[in-house]
Amino acid sequence: TKEDFDLAALYVSDAQYNRNIFFDTSPQAVRLYLLYNHWLPRVLLYFFILVDLCLALFEEPAVVLLPLWVTLLVELLCLLVFTLRLFHYARVIPRDKFWKDPKNICIIVILLLTLVDMIIYGALVATNCYAVRWSRVLRPLLLVNITEGRQLRRAFRSIRNALPEIFYVFLLFMFSVLMFSLMALKLLGKRGLKTIDGSAYFTNYLEVVFDLYVLVTTANSPDVMMPAYNSSDVFVLFFILYIFINTYIFMSAFLAVVFNNYKKHLKEEVRQLVKAKRHKMVRAFAVLQERREEGGALVVSHANWTQVVRQVQPNISNAHRELLWSVCDDKNQGFIGRLAFVQLADLLNIEVITLKSRPHPLQNWCPSIYLSAPSRLICRMVQHRAFVIAYDLIILTNAVFIGLDEENPMIANSEWVFLALYLLEILLKLYVFEPRSFFSKHSFWNWFDTIIVVSALIATIVNAALKSSGGYTSRQILDIVFILRVLRLIRVVDSIERFRAIINTLIRIGPAILTFGQLIVVVYYIFAMVGMEVFKGKVKFYDEDSSDPAKAYCGNSLLKGTDFAQANYCKNNFNNVVSSFILLVELTVVNQWHDILYLNATSMVFGGSNPADNPLLSSGFATVTHVSARIFFVLFHILVVIVIINIFVSFVLEAFYVEY
Amino acid sequence: TKEDFDLAALYVSDAQYNRNIFFDTSPQAVRLYLLYNHWLPRVLLYFFILVDLCLALFEEPAVVLLPLWVTLLVELLCLLVFTLRLFHYARVIPRDKFWKDPKNICIIVILLLTLVDMIIYGALVATNCYAVRWSRVLRPLLLVNITEGRQLRRAFRSIRNALPEIFYVFLLFMFSVLMFSLMALKLLGKRGLKTIDGSAYFTNYLEVVFDLYVLVTTANSPDVMMPAYNSSDVFVLFFILYIFINTYIFMSAFLAVVFNNYKKHLKEEVRQLVKAKRHKMVRAFAVLQERREEGGALVVSHANWTQVVRQVQPNISNAHRELLWSVCDDKNQGFIGRLAFVQLADLLNIEVITLKSRPHPLQNWCPSIYLSAPSRLICRMVQHRAFVIAYDLIILTNAVFIGLDEENPMIANSEWVFLALYLLEILLKLYVFEPRSFFSKHSFWNWFDTIIVVSALIATIVNAALKSSGGYTSRQILDIVFILRVLRLIRVVDSIERFRAIINTLIRIGPAILTFGQLIVVVYYIFAMVGMEVFKGKVKFYDEDSSDPAKAYCGNSLLKGTDFAQANYCKNNFNNVVSSFILLVELTVVNQWHDILYLNATSMVFGGSNPADNPLLSSGFATVTHVSARIFFVLFHILVVIVIINIFVSFVLEAFYVEY
Ligand code: NA
Repeated sequence: TKEDFDLAALYVSDAQYNRNIFFDTSPQAVRLYLLYNHWLPRVLLYFFILVDLCLALFEEPAVVLLPLWVTLLVELLCLLVFTLRLFHYARVIPRDKFWKDPKNICIIVILLLTLVDMIIYGALVATNCYAVRWSRVLRPLLLVNITEGRQLRRAFRSIRNALPEIFYVFLLFMFSVLMFSLMALKLLGKRGLKTIDGSAYFTNYLEVVFDLYVLVTTANSPDVMMPAYNSSDVFVLFFILYIFINTYIFMSAFLAVVFNNYKKHLKEEVRQLVKAKRHKMVRAFAVLQERREEGGALVVSHANWTQVVRQVQPNISNAHRELLWSVCDDKNQGFIGRLAFVQLADLLNIEVITLKSRPHPLQNWCPSIYLSAPSRLICRMVQHRAFVIAYDLIILTNAVFIGLDEENPMIANSEWVFLALYLLEILLKLYVFEPRSFFSKHSFWNWFDTIIVVSALIATIVNAALKSSGGYTSRQILDIVFILRVLRLIRVVDSIERFRAIINTLIRIGPAILTFGQLIVVVYYIFAMVGMEVFKGKVKFYDEDSSDPAKAYCGNSLLKGTDFAQANYCKNNFNNVVSSFILLVELTVVNQWHDILYLNATSMVFGGSNPADNPLLSSGFATVTHVSARIFFVLFHILVVIVIINIFVSFVLEAFYVEY
Repeated sequence: TKEDFDLAALYVSDAQYNRNIFFDTSPQAVRLYLLYNHWLPRVLLYFFILVDLCLALFEEPAVVLLPLWVTLLVELLCLLVFTLRLFHYARVIPRDKFWKDPKNICIIVILLLTLVDMIIYGALVATNCYAVRWSRVLRPLLLVNITEGRQLRRAFRSIRNALPEIFYVFLLFMFSVLMFSLMALKLLGKRGLKTIDGSAYFTNYLEVVFDLYVLVTTANSPDVMMPAYNSSDVFVLFFILYIFINTYIFMSAFLAVVFNNYKKHLKEEVRQLVKAKRHKMVRAFAVLQERREEGGALVVSHANWTQVVRQVQPNISNAHRELLWSVCDDKNQGFIGRLAFVQLADLLNIEVITLKSRPHPLQNWCPSIYLSAPSRLICRMVQHRAFVIAYDLIILTNAVFIGLDEENPMIANSEWVFLALYLLEILLKLYVFEPRSFFSKHSFWNWFDTIIVVSALIATIVNAALKSSGGYTSRQILDIVFILRVLRLIRVVDSIERFRAIINTLIRIGPAILTFGQLIVVVYYIFAMVGMEVFKGKVKFYDEDSSDPAKAYCGNSLLKGTDFAQANYCKNNFNNVVSSFILLVELTVVNQWHDILYLNATSMVFGGSNPADNPLLSSGFATVTHVSARIFFVLFHILVVIVIINIFVSFVLEAFYVEY
């Protein structure tokens, strides 16, 4: 029946795209499931998640502040969309399966908590009370828990699996840090040394622990050891031993543990994936199976197979489909058994490149010219190795010209020459090679070249037109022109065999990087929300044109004369979601993070009064209030640098091992 | 004959210790070779290499300056020793082999060049001319080229093998840096932005390249992007993309390439080693072989085998030797063939732990007491799990007490209690366990405990005696007491199974770390010698008590008001070999290196005049003179951070993969 074919096609397509949803098999549920998998609701879902996440741009503390009712209304709309999508999903799969799945429970809890928070927040703001939108940290978790977040969940599972082993190494690492700190306290604390700002050196145990933790990230090297070094060379041995053990050995051990777990986990995930795929295909087979003869094996006939394949991939060519059939039915029996049928999902994923050596269209239109001697000479020339080398030389010359001052009219005009040369190259290639194969899916560099050169041509013409018409040059268009010019040079890499191998490895990492990107966004978003609530508004950024005297100390008298203000770090703050994200990137890079974070926190408790005026206050303050900033960073460091970055590095290591 | 046995024993011992020297087989050469392998001349050789390397401490620029004739005389003595050792080696191996071996040629060239340099230097100094002891960079190369430097040569070969692939990734990486720099120049250079010190931002291409290279090491993050960030948020995208591609992707790619090469190379080296070993054993067999019957196989008799084993390992027990024989001669024929003989080298390396459950000596002396009920109760108590837990708790309590202020008399006296408890633990264990097995070779923690506790006891008693006698406390003894106290706490790690596994992995890395240590010393020494010649005396360090106004700017008016002087970095200089090594460690850690190096170089050309007085001079100076510092660091960074540290990380990765 048609319903059977629908069901079978659904199983096959689930297997093909690695979907692992146990949907209800009633005809109505199958129709709903088909709709559920349609691209439009999926794109809409991601769009509304994006809108939900972007709300942080317009909420207090905002980049562009919108009235509260606008953001609340938009968020309500988002919640509605997520609820509908979840409701749809509930109709697709059996009720008991729905309630057993933790991700559905997660989404429901997130939606309910968000709603509760919105009501409480609205009420508190209406009554002018202090209110915190704490449910904003839950927003990115939606990305993880929607059915489409498979890859992201896999990444989180990979982290969860590595955690126990990381935890043991971390305990040992912390033990080492604590022991070294104790030794530092005993060896250096009683010597009456002073740090650069005149305070006592290594006298408070918790301060020592934190300073040495920072040293592991190398961020305060060599500052932290200078007082000891200035007092005696011998103390440097302590720091060298510390860095060797904790920075080199332990950080490598973290990478080793993550890498080993990653490889183990990867194998297990692949096994699971293959199993789920097989399971789906077996179910599809069960729907289509028939018995040719009494007591014979269960098989699927050619006709049924064809029908299903047509439904799964409507745009597959007949030739391609028959090729797949002949692979399955290698004995040419007209039917296939279960084993042959199960391969179908993988066969459909194999891209068959039809290498028809089609003649050039020009050859069909006017063969006399296209096949003439000069035309053939052009073809031979373009296909010659020298043509590639000639254009590489042109690109290198171009690079030099770009580096020179473009205000010089000669240089500015040379741009037209280079553009013409690049355009000529593309036209020549289009003359020689069949256009459809030139612009085939796999010809990355042809697409790259053409897009870059055509865009550069358009941008340059627009720029020239603007200039000649009103003498006015748009900075934005000029920027685009420059970027396109530089991008054009990248092509030179493709000419060298060894480079191509490396680049191909890097390109193949691409899809996985998208998953890592989402992972990073989830973690950053949560930390940004927390950071904004805790540290917002303490450090202010003044425009360059501002003549406010507070500009010199980032609008906070506590920062008067500090390195932070002198280094112009005022914009490194948690005052809105954009600067929070940038600050978190800086914390990921690790350099100078203690300065950045310390001083964002320094200004936390004392709004305007200067604790330096009161030495007692100042020292008490130093030991108490930075704790939040320290916990914040240490958590961030463990999660992002020790875990996520190491997973990323493991991933690159494995990719190079497999591909290169 | 005796000579045959000598020769065979030599082959076997070469195979056992992986020596791969093709010595001459004449009886005289064999005797010389035996002497060559004796521990005394080898220790002497290493001693004189150490002396030669340490000469840098006493040569201009010196830590302790000795008269020139003293250092020259000592170096001459070292050269003599090296020549003698080489001459000895030349007598051991066939002449043609000697001249074909590049390491011998290397040593000869090093010795000759050093001699020439010494003569030239002596002559120049005598005539008061400017002279450079350039041959000092050759000194560490002796470590690599002596026959005992096998492991080190293997490490260098490993680097050489990885170089071509690293080179291609490096080219691509530099291409990426150059492209990004070009883009930065075009996008940011024309916007009239200013850096923190008021100079133009990103206007000179080479400066941009260097700044972005530094950014790859993260050392100038976020400073380098602050001017752009302050002008617009959008520019941060450029830097994030740059860091992502160059710091995360490319640095991981370097690690991946080094790691893959390391694994490949490791397998090849092991294969070579096994081959060489087999070759030596086959030669030993050929010396000892005899034919039992006409036309029969060649074999070695039990008597001959025993004789050779006795010569190779004179202190092997008869039982152990017979055990090895029974492993070889498993059919009990009284002779063995070639295959069985070849195993001998590996068999000799296997440590046979004789697990005799010897009774406790006390049991022999007075069994009535030792086997009495209370004594047995003690034995059961000590062997109980609770005993370990009790002592772990004592250690943790001890840790808290150490953290507290030791000036408090209660705390100070508690130290005696803890010492008594630890001593009691050791005595109890000695009472319960057989002392020889308690102090066996493999009981690392027992040795550790005993040595630490006994040393602590002695140091504490000496300290108390000094204090009570004259009220005088020696800072050095107190330091030792503190260090021993903290070290005592480490033992707690051994109680937790998971920690023990990690620690054992780390301990097994030990021997390889020694090779890395030598590798690092070779590279550091060369860079230190070059750095001292180029940068010495530019930055001066003044004692804390000094009241010289030049102290504020490290004795160089060029450094007035710079971060370098303000951060008290004056001691980070190339003024002697110790501070050079410490500076190189700081460069390896990478943080702040651009500041350290830049300012060591800043003061290079202008001795006393301040270029800031002359803006033209200052800007010209900025572009010309730092080139040497930049080349110096970039070379150091590539060699040490990109290559050697990555090999070290690969090594830890592999160790954790194999062991953990
Ligand atoms: Na750093």
